[in-house]
Amino acid sequence: MARINDNYLKLKAGYLFPEIGRRVKAFAEANPSAKIIRMGIGDVTEPLPPVVVEALHKAVDEMSRRETFRGYAPEQGYDFLREAIAANDYRAKNCEVSADEVFVSDGSKCDGGNILDIFAQGEKDNTIAVCDPVYPIYVDTNVMAGHTGPADERGEYSGLVYMRATEANNFVPEIPKQRVDIIYLCFPNNPTGAVATRAQLTQWIEYAKANGSIMLFDAAYESYITDPSIPHSIYEIPGARDVAIEFRSFSKTAGFTGVRCAYTVVPKSLNGRAKDGSPVPLHSLWMRRHTTKFNSVTYIVQRAAEATYSDAGKQQIRSLISFYLENAKLIREGLSAAGLKCFGGVNAPYVWMQTPRRMPSWDAFDLLLSKANVVVTPGSGFGLSGEGYFRVSAFNSRENVVEAVRRIHGVISANG
Amino acid sequence: MARINDNYLKLKAGYLFPEIGRRVKAFAEANPSAKIIRMGIGDVTEPLPPVVVEALHKAVDEMSRRETFRGYAPEQGYDFLREAIAANDYRAKNCEVSADEVFVSDGSKCDGGNILDIFAQGEKDNTIAVCDPVYPIYVDTNVMAGHTGPADERGEYSGLVYMRATEANNFVPEIPKQRVDIIYLCFPNNPTGAVATRAQLTQWIEYAKANGSIMLFDAAYESYITDPSIPHSIYEIPGARDVAIEFRSFSKTAGFTGVRCAYTVVPKSLNGRAKDGSPVPLHSLWMRRHTTKFNSVTYIVQRAAEATYSDAGKQQIRSLISFYLENAKLIREGLSAAGLKCFGGVNAPYVWMQTPRRMPSWDAFDLLLSKANVVVTPGSGFGLSGEGYFRVSAFNSRENVVEAVRRIHGVISANG
Repeated sequence: MARINDNYLKLKAGYLFPEIGRRVKAFAEANPSAKIIRMGIGDVTEPLPPVVVEALHKAVDEMSRRETFRGYAPEQGYDFLREAIAANDYRAKNCEVSADEVFVSDGSKCDGGNILDIFAQGEKDNTIAVCDPVYPIYVDTNVMAGHTGPADERGEYSGLVYMRATEANNFVPEIPKQRVDIIYLCFPNNPTGAVATRAQLTQWIEYAKANGSIMLFDAAYESYITDPSIPHSIYEIPGARDVAIEFRSFSKTAGFTGVRCAYTVVPKSLNGRAKDGSPVPLHSLWMRRHTTKFNSVTYIVQRAAEATYSDAGKQQIRSLISFYLENAKLIREGLSAAGLKCFGGVNAPYVWMQTPRRMPSWDAFDLLLSKANVVVTPGSGFGLSGEGYFRVSAFNSRENVVEAVRRIHGVISANG
Repeated sequence: MARINDNYLKLKAGYLFPEIGRRVKAFAEANPSAKIIRMGIGDVTEPLPPVVVEALHKAVDEMSRRETFRGYAPEQGYDFLREAIAANDYRAKNCEVSADEVFVSDGSKCDGGNILDIFAQGEKDNTIAVCDPVYPIYVDTNVMAGHTGPADERGEYSGLVYMRATEANNFVPEIPKQRVDIIYLCFPNNPTGAVATRAQLTQWIEYAKANGSIMLFDAAYESYITDPSIPHSIYEIPGARDVAIEFRSFSKTAGFTGVRCAYTVVPKSLNGRAKDGSPVPLHSLWMRRHTTKFNSVTYIVQRAAEATYSDAGKQQIRSLISFYLENAKLIREGLSAAGLKCFGGVNAPYVWMQTPRRMPSWDAFDLLLSKANVVVTPGSGFGLSGEGYFRVSAFNSRENVVEAVRRIHGVISANG
């Protein structure tokens, strides 16, 4: 009988968000009158910006006429979008990234998992370092690809190097003592909302250069940075083009979680090593992967993404982000006033906070769901160092944010 | 230094279609006045059906209002679309497929490659059989996943079982003599346009059941079947639910090559085998893969796909397919009259024909490009048994089809 990929059997329970979904569904069914406010999954709530809506309609009309209809797109993305990305997100910010180093895709989650295809398959070939807490996809996709051994009783997989992000290091982990081959970093961070300074990122790049490591840099939340000293792109750091791949998305910038468009930058100067030791450009490997196993983002959506770079588009997106950042501020200040210790939420749409009386994360989840009817994300779902914390997402209406803060405040006071 | 996936280095040259693109581009640049007609890549040319356009606009409008905005979708697809697919494409045709066995995706090419994630990684674990000629993606994704050894000088990879489709067997290969674990079949076939009879498919299913094989059945062209005795779905064959995964797409049905929507059916009764010999449901593995490494098709497109199942939608799609089938007929009859031996084109949008005087496929490609300014697909690009053939796609305007046939006729007469 056909053999399955046994690595899948190493995966623990469900992915975090489906588990939250199951608990919320059960609660909602048992309490049909409860007005649940969802601040768990980081999903945008505000409508698409007008420039995006206009571009979508226009592209749909083009697809309805023979003269302007478009079939298969270039898998890597249309030049108009790759050029707009390179010009606006990089060259305008003094980062050296060319249009043909930009690969348009349907999501950073997808790219972040798929990128492993181009690296050696198997536990012993590459040592992989992830932050703890971490976006669970990074760990799960490595387990699936066979880059880890089994999980221990605490849920950590042998073979992975876990870099701890704690209050003591401001949620920016120290550089590993050992040599690692692939390093995942995400700043502004999901889930902690922490940012890395230019000096810290420079140290990471120097470490990667010294060790021949590849950095997978997730910049999905860069547009939430308010502190002008914090880098938005890893390519602001000298030498990054030789060691780093960057992932970005329109999801949290332009409200595209239900529209689906993202991109990945693979510089042409970036090399991995073949079995025989010879250097191999990762750009050509990813190009082969992308053209063979992916078939482009729909033209309609690529035009919508392009529209975000117009003057009006930039303005509309800025106001969308400001709206969510104001939510983050209300959450941080409101819950700090309730006596909860809060982090993040200044350069990120996530507020990371200690649970009341340091209770276990899932207990805090259940408490807030049952008593405040507010859904948060239990920190332990992101890893061991997330235990005793929970994440609150600023993606919601103002009304819901205000009401959720009020309700949580009440529960904390009653349980304090 | 980080180790790359060395399997990528086994891949031969470029993927077929980029190579065609390069040659056409070079010719066009050298001959700017040439009016090139592209019948190489199987890409639709007619505008989206009105019901689809209407559904796209409506969904865009929903996304523009807070009350109807949608963020992250269920990764597997919205229930409304999964239900419509199960009801219309299966239950209405007496096939037992439930909505939760349908996984909506952005393309059959993507799914066909990604499905390998859930099978054992490595050359020796599963024996894999592909048809020859074959859609190149099936081979390339197996090479990338490390399921093959290197290619020989003719371009065939060790470790793969090639099932020859020739004129002698009407382009439906014989069942392999040895046991294989995974079998790729595509009917109506790309590139030959051949179809398999109910009796032939029944034999395949019986073989798969007897050998514990999994069949990967590509039905992307099922809507082009005109012969009422030919099955549209592998699930029309008793026992197929225990051995087969089916891939389908809206690309060639509703003209979605630039819109991107497809689906894959993984029956719950389908098992693979873990290392310890125990059966494991492939449905749960694919669910885990799909929810972890994919993030759904945009809501806007899912509504458009749903619209194809309305009464008006069915009618509009039927007329689109009839249009392309009439093109296929014109090609087949026109080039037969020119003395070329033609196959396919009756239950498929592809006509497969012998090259003039059995010249090598790429020579025929260059001849037709340079003399007729018509782009076809060289049969050898699909595998050894494709040598001496070329594929002509019926996806074009009527005017172009008539003109291409006229020009090819002229070149054949002049070179006869």
